[in-house]
Amino acid sequence: SSRGRRMSFVLDPRLARDSHAIGELRLSQLRLMDDARFTWLILVPRIAGARELVDLDATDRSQLLEEITLVGRALEVLVCPDKLNIAAIGNVVAQLHVHLIARFESDALWPDPVWGRGERVVLTNDAREQQLARLREALKAELS
Amino acid sequence: SSRGRRMSFVLDPRLARDSHAIGELRLSQLRLMDDARFTWLILVPRIAGARELVDLDATDRSQLLEEITLVGRALEVLVCPDKLNIAAIGNVVAQLHVHLIARFESDALWPDPVWGRGERVVLTNDAREQQLARLREALKAELS
Repeated sequence: SSRGRRMSFVLDPRLARDSHAIGELRLSQLRLMDDARFTWLILVPRIAGARELVDLDATDRSQLLEEITLVGRALEVLVCPDKLNIAAIGNVVAQLHVHLIARFESDALWPDPVWGRGERVVLTNDAREQQLARLREALKAELS
Repeated sequence: SSRGRRMSFVLDPRLARDSHAIGELRLSQLRLMDDARFTWLILVPRIAGARELVDLDATDRSQLLEEITLVGRALEVLVCPDKLNIAAIGNVVAQLHVHLIARFESDALWPDPVWGRGERVVLTNDAREQQLARLREALKAELS
């Protein structure tokens, strides 16, 4: 059942290691990637075994799209990116997760995509807490 | 108006040059990227000036998600990929377009994403016509 699949959801250990929980949306956990080069968020639907966006049922798929939209719009307001990059790839971590990355023409990798390029720059404790606080404030109406 | 924006839609010349029309879905033009390394499709919503998925209105956004789903599921049936890569990036071509790429653990770039990596291998005329015919057949109920 859908409820059973949610009860048994466990975050992939690599996603857990590389990112920090911002909070819970209705379907997904919202997380901040630990990479000071970009404002880079991921949405992880709490559905055990989910791998492909197109294999979600219609309700979950619509809810995920709404969460992509509200998080994307929050990023637009917060950081005014030149472009949002939104993607479900999953070649390395198969657990379904959607990237939302605020990109700037001035950033280190522009115009290349970010995945698997360059060296990650770990966030300092202060930068991480500041980012998390700012994102929680921007999305406080939606997060639990 | 939404109708006015559709009347004045013009496909980006770079997308036109790098891909071939498969047909028209309700909102988007479906195209085949001219790259023999991958089964790589793009959906281009026929909305003049559209850049960001999250800035579409709710009707267009839902329709685009339905088109992503039906094309993604058709790719799953046709080529049985190990993973679908789905993305709206747009750092090079700002016109909104969504990539759907069938990836295999055995492909030339696995597990890296495909954008901006390696050298494109242009499709032969025969391979292109065969791919287009196969995709049109698989999606004939949806394409006009």
